[in-house]
Amino acid sequence: MPKSLLPLGRAIKQRRDALGLSQESLAEQCGFDRTYISMLERGRRNPSFLNLLRLADGLKTSVAQLTEVYDGPSTD
Amino acid sequence: MPKSLLPLGRAIKQRRDALGLSQESLAEQCGFDRTYISMLERGRRNPSFLNLLRLADGLKTSVAQLTEVYDGPSTD
Repeated sequence: MPKSLLPLGRAIKQRRDALGLSQESLAEQCGFDRTYISMLERGRRNPSFLNLLRLADGLKTSVAQLTEVYDGPSTD
Repeated sequence: MPKSLLPLGRAIKQRRDALGLSQESLAEQCGFDRTYISMLERGRRNPSFLNLLRLADGLKTSVAQLTEVYDGPSTD
């Protein structure tokens, strides 16, 4: 998978850790499988926008905040 | 498709219009089909995160800006 999914995965994990949530409880809250959360955090899944919305809800944040590490257009 | 894709579609169209780009030229820049852009703008496609990154690049903006209308967790 492309490198560019990693910063998203890190942002998800960082936010989950900040909330003190386990992968399991986040997964449960979002209606996902725990392995999906695990793969996302390692940049191994390319989530759809609707899944990102569900994740952001479960993490009590917004898609905009989860993706702000990707600021501005890339140069490649 | 769920309602929640519409604000994203509107943000894409608004940004494309602001840049004076046709659907065709945006599609070409991103390596998408014009019909995909058209469907996205009408909230009829649920793009993957990697496709959102390509779109944001083509629109000289960021995923965070395209999705900022979805601010904070929803209540439903």
